[in-house]
Amino acid sequence: MSRLRINCFAVSADGYGAGPAQSLEQPLGVGGEALHEWVFPLAAWREPHGMKGGEVNESTPVVEHTLTNIGATIMGRNMFGGGPGPWNTEQPWIGWWKDNPPFHHPVFVLTHYPREPLPLKGGTTFHFVTGGIHEALERAREAAAGKDVRVGGGVQTVRDYLRADLIDEMHLALSPVLLGRGEALFAGIDLTALGFRCSEQVASPKAMHVVLTREPA
Amino acid sequence: MSRLRINCFAVSADGYGAGPAQSLEQPLGVGGEALHEWVFPLAAWREPHGMKGGEVNESTPVVEHTLTNIGATIMGRNMFGGGPGPWNTEQPWIGWWKDNPPFHHPVFVLTHYPREPLPLKGGTTFHFVTGGIHEALERAREAAAGKDVRVGGGVQTVRDYLRADLIDEMHLALSPVLLGRGEALFAGIDLTALGFRCSEQVASPKAMHVVLTREPA
Repeated sequence: MSRLRINCFAVSADGYGAGPAQSLEQPLGVGGEALHEWVFPLAAWREPHGMKGGEVNESTPVVEHTLTNIGATIMGRNMFGGGPGPWNTEQPWIGWWKDNPPFHHPVFVLTHYPREPLPLKGGTTFHFVTGGIHEALERAREAAAGKDVRVGGGVQTVRDYLRADLIDEMHLALSPVLLGRGEALFAGIDLTALGFRCSEQVASPKAMHVVLTREPA
Repeated sequence: MSRLRINCFAVSADGYGAGPAQSLEQPLGVGGEALHEWVFPLAAWREPHGMKGGEVNESTPVVEHTLTNIGATIMGRNMFGGGPGPWNTEQPWIGWWKDNPPFHHPVFVLTHYPREPLPLKGGTTFHFVTGGIHEALERAREAAAGKDVRVGGGVQTVRDYLRADLIDEMHLALSPVLLGRGEALFAGIDLTALGFRCSEQVASPKAMHVVLTREPA
């Protein structure tokens, strides 16, 4: 059964998934990069991003798990980037990851503006979905061909799928960072009422990982 | 300089400091006890509560620190207990901790209802303060005689002192627990604007400790 998963989603100690004032220069908002400091030094993160070396620690198996059995990714327009409004056809934006993105599978980008599919190196093709989160999930599941689908982010996209009661598993990295303001990941969303419980936790030097799964119906 | 500290304050993975429906039977709300599962097995917690044995792990020095240099504690009426409304003079409530509380110093209870001081065994005397958080702090500082003052809780009392810009140091235990609803510890409070940053973090098997301190003015 193909599941819908959220993996490696970092949350600040005060509950924010991104800082305030997100922009093209700071897609994670002011201070938001610090949420991910636990992952950048890891060999398990560097390798798929085309970098050699790096650390191995308690976070390593958690990150490796996030790469397992994923057949497609869904993301919001802000996470893909390129600014708001219609797509620039003169200088087409191809995503933050340049010409060889680390996904290596189809990626479905939620947007209000249609655009032709964008095939890049290494097996990543970005598809642009204007019909909303349900259409994106339907297309992603078909593309994943039995594997799981990952919701990559950002915060609003994660919240949309949670509120629609569609997420099966969620892995959070609780980070020892304060953001003060920004996008509160869970405000107004009752995870317990949605059936989630904490099924696993891993202490690591720079983050505490928790895995939230749904009770079997 | 006497500082105002919050120590060992547990927060759920979804940001709650207590569960919903707090009552005399469940002073931490539905599910709230689970927030503190990391502390109960520790020798450092059991010993001052009159129990032998227990674990020593990465949380131990953090808990030991919380007991250091504290000369007085402030707490809200709910944390002291006894139900809402005027004090019952027929069967006087002496607190959840019975006749030998683990504080061993003066404790100032915020309440709307006056009551004579309540001296108990081991050096703990409960004082009942009807003049609000500033009066309680003034009296606690005087009683602490140069040592630090601790805000024990609950969530509303912590939030009141944070909003009044009076907290110097805050130690949180991020717990791998979901509460779904309840009292959100930081909703609407911008810790970054208040000058807090994460100055220390300790990974432990059952919680991630973060210490938040203010930037020197």
